[in-house]
Amino acid sequence: MPNSEPCVSPLELFNSIATQGELVRSLKAGNASKDEIDSAVKMLLSLKMSYKAAMGEDYKANCPPGNPAPTSNHGPDATEAEEDFVDPWTVQTSSAKGIDYDKLIVRFGSSKIDKELINRIERATGQRPHRFLRRGIFFSHRDMNQVLDAYENKKPFYLYTGRGPSSEAMHVGHLIPFIFTKWLQDVFNVPLVIQMTDDEKYLWKDLTLDQAYSYAVENAKDIIACGFDINKTFIFSDLDYMGMSSGFYKNVVKIQKHVTFNQVKGIFGFTDSDCTLGKISFPAIQAAPSFSNSFPQIFRDRTDIQCLIPCAIDQGPYFRMTRDVAPRIGYPKPALLHSTFFPALQGAQTKISASDPNSSIFLTDTAKQIKTKVNKHAFSGGRDTIEEHRQFGGNCDVDVSFMYLTFFLEDDDKLEQIRKDYTSGAMLTGELKKALIEVLQPLIAEHQARRKEVTDEIVKEFMTPRKLSFDFQ
Amino acid sequence: MPNSEPCVSPLELFNSIATQGELVRSLKAGNASKDEIDSAVKMLLSLKMSYKAAMGEDYKANCPPGNPAPTSNHGPDATEAEEDFVDPWTVQTSSAKGIDYDKLIVRFGSSKIDKELINRIERATGQRPHRFLRRGIFFSHRDMNQVLDAYENKKPFYLYTGRGPSSEAMHVGHLIPFIFTKWLQDVFNVPLVIQMTDDEKYLWKDLTLDQAYSYAVENAKDIIACGFDINKTFIFSDLDYMGMSSGFYKNVVKIQKHVTFNQVKGIFGFTDSDCTLGKISFPAIQAAPSFSNSFPQIFRDRTDIQCLIPCAIDQGPYFRMTRDVAPRIGYPKPALLHSTFFPALQGAQTKISASDPNSSIFLTDTAKQIKTKVNKHAFSGGRDTIEEHRQFGGNCDVDVSFMYLTFFLEDDDKLEQIRKDYTSGAMLTGELKKALIEVLQPLIAEHQARRKEVTDEIVKEFMTPRKLSFDFQ
Repeated sequence: MPNSEPCVSPLELFNSIATQGELVRSLKAGNASKDEIDSAVKMLLSLKMSYKAAMGEDYKANCPPGNPAPTSNHGPDATEAEEDFVDPWTVQTSSAKGIDYDKLIVRFGSSKIDKELINRIERATGQRPHRFLRRGIFFSHRDMNQVLDAYENKKPFYLYTGRGPSSEAMHVGHLIPFIFTKWLQDVFNVPLVIQMTDDEKYLWKDLTLDQAYSYAVENAKDIIACGFDINKTFIFSDLDYMGMSSGFYKNVVKIQKHVTFNQVKGIFGFTDSDCTLGKISFPAIQAAPSFSNSFPQIFRDRTDIQCLIPCAIDQGPYFRMTRDVAPRIGYPKPALLHSTFFPALQGAQTKISASDPNSSIFLTDTAKQIKTKVNKHAFSGGRDTIEEHRQFGGNCDVDVSFMYLTFFLEDDDKLEQIRKDYTSGAMLTGELKKALIEVLQPLIAEHQARRKEVTDEIVKEFMTPRKLSFDFQ
Repeated sequence: MPNSEPCVSPLELFNSIATQGELVRSLKAGNASKDEIDSAVKMLLSLKMSYKAAMGEDYKANCPPGNPAPTSNHGPDATEAEEDFVDPWTVQTSSAKGIDYDKLIVRFGSSKIDKELINRIERATGQRPHRFLRRGIFFSHRDMNQVLDAYENKKPFYLYTGRGPSSEAMHVGHLIPFIFTKWLQDVFNVPLVIQMTDDEKYLWKDLTLDQAYSYAVENAKDIIACGFDINKTFIFSDLDYMGMSSGFYKNVVKIQKHVTFNQVKGIFGFTDSDCTLGKISFPAIQAAPSFSNSFPQIFRDRTDIQCLIPCAIDQGPYFRMTRDVAPRIGYPKPALLHSTFFPALQGAQTKISASDPNSSIFLTDTAKQIKTKVNKHAFSGGRDTIEEHRQFGGNCDVDVSFMYLTFFLEDDDKLEQIRKDYTSGAMLTGELKKALIEVLQPLIAEHQARRKEVTDEIVKEFMTPRKLSFDFQ
């Protein structure tokens, strides 16, 4: 029976248990509340039960499936409190440098975007790789070589990305996948679908359907302002498109037939008691756009057109589930490009909160607000006094202004010069922040100007199911 | 938090546990297989866990919630092996007379359709009550008086019923809700929506999407042949309509936000391991047509139009869930009219199987097949010899031919005469069967003739979302 096969690989489950065990230990060590610890322990037990159900034997620490001997370099003491926790709702790390992405790659079983792959993208497209590639911001992938094979053989593929419209307020970090996706669309010249998961936000947040939908439309304006080609881009609200597409619901039902509750429990850490039907079934709705016949207006009934998904690594669980179910319903697995997290102004240990305007630069900020926020709130890797700073230099690894520059300053040489000067102490924190402000102010102002030009008619056209300029082969 | 409230009342849960306990006992007593017993025990434990979660204390037999003393007339010995088990997938009874419907009413907390209510329907409509009402075939209701209040005050309501198209083969029993719904549509002059749950059949059966949809269309022809008014009837396939309606998915998501997995587990007896996302989320899809704004083409954005659902009692769990969630999402609860089960030719202990052509009269049967099936397979309440029969008489309570006549013979006096004559022994089994054959042959032939006239164009019109002739007040 295909739908009794485990959706997560035993190794993935094993890794989830290891991570969760470490979370429990660090909660206990860190004086977390009883409730927090209890709920983490519950999830740990549930993961262990899933493991036993899948493997027919109990989980044993340091004995990954298919590897009976304990791994020597990865004992419990070595990793304790060092591991990060990442899922679509939680990003947790104790390090000011942020998540350890190399470890995430190992844990998730994805592949590193290495120099060789970047060179291949450059050769295939004839374009200089985007700074997000050059700088490891998109750091991990699945099956990108397959996409390039197809591209080099003139076979079609398409891009899919999305956004959960939880409020009107988008910050610069939200733009990362869209800036990169626009570049991919330009250099590969392919169609793109953008899912606005207003249904998800309705299900998880205290919003009405109308509010969630209106956020979807408002956010679409900011996305359009990134410069997508209207002839090659379809933006859709789930609440809307489900009722307009002859293909979308059919794929949702297909996926829902072939994924069990135990599987999503293992992947997303759902527990029985907190779970509404909506939360349980939502993963299928995020999965469905990975299959080309969810968009008959674009791809007709073609099911074989590969999908490439650029997204932040926290969306990984959704697409691991998607890739697992794909062959069981006769569709190709989507390829993935994963980005790192965008740090909060206060430091890389936390995710930005939309309800805290000082936690990042928002797309509605004025030049003055940008200046004030960076100067007041951007966590600094500088020394306590100018004298100490000149003598010992600053720490770019934890400095949020420098991190933001790696995202937004295009000029590699200039960035490298700043890194050197700040590390040596030649550049002071105020100067570093000024450099960032000078990058952010025009970036945001230009975004705002482009957004102003996005009329309701333009939004409506982007959001109308229609043919896209797409070359069938 | 509204969505942490239990969806089943503690009393309903209590009753489910009692029923399940009795099922386990009877399985053990009846030499059932280990697997069957194990799975029944598992469900019992899961129900007890839900009870404890809802009530904060363990389930105690004969101590219904809010009633600490054991009930005196309902001890475990008295009820053992007497209780029936009914849910949308299982109907189980040990009695040849069939399910004890008075007990079901008590267990489900619905109301009996009594003489007083039938008289009220007659007064309100000015029409003689349908034989299904006169004979207790529609035997139970919820809030029917509310519907009649509305009707008498010239407020609108609408009808909703449905069918799970698991194959092309429909039998006469399948027509019961449709025959009755057509009568309701005629006497109340109201719009009707008919849901074909092809998605459900895809999820539960080994069918492709295309097969499930084609069964929906084929079954729609048999339904249309019952004589529904094309100006007042909308028939829809879920797989189709979900992608055509601006209102349906929105209500599905609303329901899915407000029902938890624990709740559907309690109601439908789902277990974690066997449950696909599709099965878990389907109850919301059957619930959504109970709310008028799922059909904007008919009711615009009106949310206050009451729904009346005629259906077999096995659909009860879906609509208990629906009624529970309705006030939490600001909609009126649907009213219900429940019918008894239609017995298999072999006897009232089992449900008819579509894969066994001899288990009932199918809508495609020839006159000859009808005659042979009734004569050969209809379970008889007659005596072993003519002499004994003449002396002691037959038993109409277990005689399937007589049961079928109660469904299909319109003439009350004739039916009563047959009952008397067969009971006294004046009428022989062959004569009773002949009476049934003479009712069924023209009934099926006329159905086949009407079905022949149902062209693809007519089906298409019934299944097109459109305005219906409907008087808004």
